[in-house]
Amino acid sequence: MSEARQRNVLLIGFGAVGTLYAYLLQRGGARVTAVCRSNRAVVKEHGIHVFSAKYGTQKNWRPDEVISSADELKDTAYDSVPDVRPSSDTIRPFLQKIRTMNASHLPLIVLIQNGVDTENEVYESLVQCEPPLASGVVGGLSWVGVTLLGEGSRIEHGSLERLKIGLFPPPLNDDPSDDIQAAFDRLVKLLADGGSDVQGTKDIEAIRWSKVLWNISWGGLCVMARQPVAAMLQAETLPYTCGVVHGIMLELLAIARANGIGEDRLPAASVDEVYSMTLGNSYAKIRVSKHPDQFFETSGGKALSDDFKPSILVDLERKKPMELHTIFGPLLRRARETNVATPRLDLIVAALVPSQLEFVKQEKGIKASEKDTEQIYDANPALNFTGGAPVLDF
Amino acid sequence: MSEARQRNVLLIGFGAVGTLYAYLLQRGGARVTAVCRSNRAVVKEHGIHVFSAKYGTQKNWRPDEVISSADELKDTAYDSVPDVRPSSDTIRPFLQKIRTMNASHLPLIVLIQNGVDTENEVYESLVQCEPPLASGVVGGLSWVGVTLLGEGSRIEHGSLERLKIGLFPPPLNDDPSDDIQAAFDRLVKLLADGGSDVQGTKDIEAIRWSKVLWNISWGGLCVMARQPVAAMLQAETLPYTCGVVHGIMLELLAIARANGIGEDRLPAASVDEVYSMTLGNSYAKIRVSKHPDQFFETSGGKALSDDFKPSILVDLERKKPMELHTIFGPLLRRARETNVATPRLDLIVAALVPSQLEFVKQEKGIKASEKDTEQIYDANPALNFTGGAPVLDF
Repeated sequence: MSEARQRNVLLIGFGAVGTLYAYLLQRGGARVTAVCRSNRAVVKEHGIHVFSAKYGTQKNWRPDEVISSADELKDTAYDSVPDVRPSSDTIRPFLQKIRTMNASHLPLIVLIQNGVDTENEVYESLVQCEPPLASGVVGGLSWVGVTLLGEGSRIEHGSLERLKIGLFPPPLNDDPSDDIQAAFDRLVKLLADGGSDVQGTKDIEAIRWSKVLWNISWGGLCVMARQPVAAMLQAETLPYTCGVVHGIMLELLAIARANGIGEDRLPAASVDEVYSMTLGNSYAKIRVSKHPDQFFETSGGKALSDDFKPSILVDLERKKPMELHTIFGPLLRRARETNVATPRLDLIVAALVPSQLEFVKQEKGIKASEKDTEQIYDANPALNFTGGAPVLDF
Repeated sequence: MSEARQRNVLLIGFGAVGTLYAYLLQRGGARVTAVCRSNRAVVKEHGIHVFSAKYGTQKNWRPDEVISSADELKDTAYDSVPDVRPSSDTIRPFLQKIRTMNASHLPLIVLIQNGVDTENEVYESLVQCEPPLASGVVGGLSWVGVTLLGEGSRIEHGSLERLKIGLFPPPLNDDPSDDIQAAFDRLVKLLADGGSDVQGTKDIEAIRWSKVLWNISWGGLCVMARQPVAAMLQAETLPYTCGVVHGIMLELLAIARANGIGEDRLPAASVDEVYSMTLGNSYAKIRVSKHPDQFFETSGGKALSDDFKPSILVDLERKKPMELHTIFGPLLRRARETNVATPRLDLIVAALVPSQLEFVKQEKGIKASEKDTEQIYDANPALNFTGGAPVLDF
C-alpha cells in the first residue's frame, strides 16, 4: 500500500471534541467518515459550523461521509477509528464490517478520553481476540476547550488545543512492530498536518495518571464548592483548600504505587507540578518560607480565566451526566482491588452520585422514583474493610 | 427571695429560635426582656406573629420589654440570660449593668446553640472572672424547625420542639451548689410550664457531641451534594453514601477520644444510632446480612420529610452565613490540637469556605475582591503535619 494513499478515518462519537478532531483530520488530508446519531440530519443537510480562535471560522463544514450504523460503511480500508467514548461494544460492529470488506488491512483504534484504564478493555476484546479486529490501540488525551451548540449544528473552540497520543500497551520495554509504528507515525502526521498541537508519547498511561491528578484534586474541590478555581485561590480560602488538594492528589499517588506505577513513570513531583501550576493563578502573595520576603513564584503565569470551572462542574450545572465513570471510576476500582483507602475521593463521588443518577435517568427518559419500596440495597458486597465506596456501576 | 416572684429573663439573639423560646418563657410565667437589633421597630410597634403547629397561632405577640442596649435595662434582678449566639463580648455589657443594679443576685447564662465547646469561653470570662458577672452557665440544645420571616415580623414553627439543657461544666463528679441547682430547676420548670418539651441533663457536653454527629455526617454529605437527605437514601445511592457517612462520624469519634471524652460519656453506639435513625427514612429495603430475607429494621419510622434539607444547606441555598464556626470550628480546633487527621471534615469545610466568605462579606457590606494582589497567604502557620485545615477564623 503506498504512503500517498488517502487515509480513511472512521470517527465514532461526534460530540464537541470528536467534531473538532474530525475537522482537523480532514484538514490533515484524511477522508473522514463520521458516525452521527442525534445530530445526523442536521450534519447531513447543513454540515457543522466550526468557530475556533485557533483555526478560524468554517461554516457548513462536512465530514466526507455521514453514517449512523456499520451497515452503511463504504470504504474498504480504514486506518484509524477514533472514538471519544470508548466501549468495545460500540466499536465492534464497525470493525467487523471493515474486516469483512478487507481482512488484510486492520485499522488502529484511537481512544481520546480522560481517565486511566481507558484502553484495557478495548485492547483485550478487539485486538487480542481471535480473529483480531484491529491492528492496535492508541490512547489519546486532549487539552481543549470546545463546546457543541445549536443542537449539534456548531462547535465553539478557543485557542487551546493540545493532544498527546501513544500506543497501548505503552511500548516501554519492547518496540512495537514496524507496521504498528508506521501506522502510529502516519496518525501523528495526519493530526499535525491538520493543525493539531499533537505529541506522540511512549507512555500514554503515565500521562493519563498525571492528567487525572488535576481533575480529581482542584477539579474535585471546585465541584464540591460549586465555584470556579479562582475562588479556591484567595488568600482567605487557601489555608483550607491547599491541604485538601494535596490530600486528594496523594490518594491518587497511593493508588498508582499500589498498582505498580512507580516513580519512573509517575514521579511524585507531578503532585507539586499540578499544585503549583494552579497556584500560579492566585492573585494573593503566597509566603512559602519563614522568611517574610520569600514568596511563591510561578513560571507559568496566569493561564486560567477568573471564571474557569472544571468540566465536571459545568456538566453538573447543566444537569448533564458528569465524567464520573471515566475520571473516578477506574481509580476507585483500582483502589478497592489494592485496598487503598480513599476517603476524599469517596466523599466527592458520594456527593455527586445522587445528581449523576438524576441526570442519567433523565437522559434515558426514566422517571426518578425515590419512593420505590421494592428496591433493595444489599449492604454486603458493597462494603469492604477500607470502608471505601464501590466502583461506579450505573 | 421568694419562689413566687416573677422570673426575669433577658433574651439576647431575637432570631427564629430566640423568639420561640422568648415566647415559651413568657407563657411559662417569666417577664421577658428581648434585645432586638434589626427588627426592633417592627417588634416594638406590631409585635411578632407566632404561627406554630405545636403552640397554635398568636398574632402580635410581644415580649414584656424590647431594648437594644444594656443602658435600657430596667429590671433589677435577672434570673436567666439566654443567648442563641454566645460570645462573652455580646453578653458582658448586659451583665455588668445588671450587676451594678443588684450585685447580690447574679443571673444564670443560658446558651442555646449547636456545636461543641459552646460554653467554655463564656464560663471562663463571665463566671470565673473577678468579680463574677453571672452565677453559672447552662448549655442548651434545641431540636426545632422554626423560621423567622417577613423581616422579623413573624415566626413559623412546625410540631417539633425538644430542648435539652444542663449545667456547665457538667456536674459529673461534684454536685452543684444548692443555689445553682435551684436556679437550674426553676429554669427547667419555666420552660416546661411554657410548653417546651424540655429535659434537664447532667452532661450537656456529651449531648453536644452526639448531636453534632448528625450535622457533620448526613448533614455534611447533603450539603456537599446540595440534595435533601432522601436523595442519599436511595437503593442506588446508599452504596456510596453509607461508607462516607460512617467515615465522617468516626472522625468525630476519634477527636472525642483524643480529647478525653470516653465511652462512658459518648458511647461508640451513638454512631450506630445516628446512622440507623436516618437510614430508617429510606424507602429501599436494606439487606444487612448474607441471609436473603434479613432486612434492616428501624423502630423510628420515617421522621424526615422527603424534601428535608439540613439547615446548613438551607443557609447555603439562601446565601446566608452557615453555622460553620459552631459546627465544624471547635471540632477542627480540637482535632488540630490533638493531631487527629480529619480528611473528610477538612474537605467539607474547604468546599464551603469560599461561599461562606462571600456570604460573610455580603452581610458586612464588603465587596468581594478576588483580585486583591496585596493579600498575603502565609503557608507556614496554617499547615501542620496532619495536613488538616486550620481552625475557622473569619
